[in-house]
Amino acid sequence: MEAQLSYIGRIQTPYRSLDDCPRNIEPGGPLCRLAIDPPFAAGLEGLAPGQQILILYWFEAVNRGNLRQASRRTGEPAGVFALRTPHRPNPIGAAVLRIEELDGSGILVRGLDCLDGTPLLDIKPAMAAETGRSTWQ
Amino acid sequence: MEAQLSYIGRIQTPYRSLDDCPRNIEPGGPLCRLAIDPPFAAGLEGLAPGQQILILYWFEAVNRGNLRQASRRTGEPAGVFALRTPHRPNPIGAAVLRIEELDGSGILVRGLDCLDGTPLLDIKPAMAAETGRSTWQ
Repeated sequence: MEAQLSYIGRIQTPYRSLDDCPRNIEPGGPLCRLAIDPPFAAGLEGLAPGQQILILYWFEAVNRGNLRQASRRTGEPAGVFALRTPHRPNPIGAAVLRIEELDGSGILVRGLDCLDGTPLLDIKPAMAAETGRSTWQ
Repeated sequence: MEAQLSYIGRIQTPYRSLDDCPRNIEPGGPLCRLAIDPPFAAGLEGLAPGQQILILYWFEAVNRGNLRQASRRTGEPAGVFALRTPHRPNPIGAAVLRIEELDGSGILVRGLDCLDGTPLLDIKPAMAAETGRSTWQ
């Protein structure tokens, strides 16, 4: 049972190799850009600088079959669903970020942890449970 | 450019039609169960009751091509990426939830908003930026 994804754009980051990538999202990290493909740009209407968004992206070239892996925090083996590793059955990354700036079909954010060129899947306004704030941003 | 998803299980909820579904996640809502397919159950090791998780799931039978829709809050048209509507190019739902209980290959949670039988894509430990807490749970 499977479903098909469409890439809505690509993420521009400073990282050209996995060794360069930070191990987690860094709220004050370097500027990155969500470059939305022109057919999807109309979907950005209503987003504004300062807003918190939840983005979903696709980790390419990972191992999708390894259900038990060593935790980077403890070194102990754990199930993949108890870890944030990109090597997972559906290698979808998730990050809650603040919109720094909008530029036409791009969104500037800070501190993503993925390779330059990573496919982007979705952008949603973050909800209170995702940001710890009591109202929508 | 596309990628393929594998369903790791199904979500059991009390809702048999879209009219029955709540419009948002309800932290104190009815019990729901994440039923993990046996080939993926080993991936649950290390999850514990009380832990906050981020789950990703797949909205079936939606319209993926409508980039501008009316906001349910304001009635005004907005871009799909400024809305939480399930009708989106990649119809992936995201929810931050507390694990109420673990039962073998199932996880009990509260207050999901989706139809009974909704395909489950991923479970991740929630991070501080997603829960508003200052440490991992």
